[in-house]
Amino acid sequence: MSGARVQRHGMRLGLRPECLAEYRRQHQRIWPEIQAAIAAAGIRNYSIYHHHGELFGYYEYVGPPEQYAERLQALAAAPRMREWWDLMETMQIPHPSRAPGTWWAEMEEVFHQD
Amino acid sequence: MSGARVQRHGMRLGLRPECLAEYRRQHQRIWPEIQAAIAAAGIRNYSIYHHHGELFGYYEYVGPPEQYAERLQALAAAPRMREWWDLMETMQIPHPSRAPGTWWAEMEEVFHQD
Repeated sequence: MSGARVQRHGMRLGLRPECLAEYRRQHQRIWPEIQAAIAAAGIRNYSIYHHHGELFGYYEYVGPPEQYAERLQALAAAPRMREWWDLMETMQIPHPSRAPGTWWAEMEEVFHQD
Repeated sequence: MSGARVQRHGMRLGLRPECLAEYRRQHQRIWPEIQAAIAAAGIRNYSIYHHHGELFGYYEYVGPPEQYAERLQALAAAPRMREWWDLMETMQIPHPSRAPGTWWAEMEEVFHQD
């Protein structure tokens, strides 16, 4: 997606190598509540890639920029989200450089072409 | 972008830490020939992220899947492309796991939600 009111985000996280198959499996059958909450937060075109024990996430937020923070808060408070994250976080290893209070580390966009 | 005839790609590469400012600068003023060749290859919504000496690339290929390989070959043969890559490759460090004959390492998509 492109144009006004779209913010792109790239993120990074570690994954315990022994958890790859389970992480993949859980995401193939992600709970409907989680999918609905992601969509309700204005998050679109969300992909997670794995490579050698690391995860890279990419998504687009479509909505008023000034509402982004509060929509992420609503996402965190959505039904079963804490339960889903508890399950994921046992498999993940956060990057030491992440911002306080966050889990994934945000990356810097150095190039974009629509 | 979503729907039929869209292939998403996530890729990974190293960047020499001392080259970050120059890499960023070159991509802010990417040559028009390179931008045109990327678009002509059917590559859309292309972003590159940097984080602690690593690059993460994401793009969407829009076109017939059976033409993807030949369109990448045409991209490689486009005007000034080899010159651009020579400039970039002095700043980059390919991942040891990359496929033979490639530069970026392709990652595995483990999750996607439109």
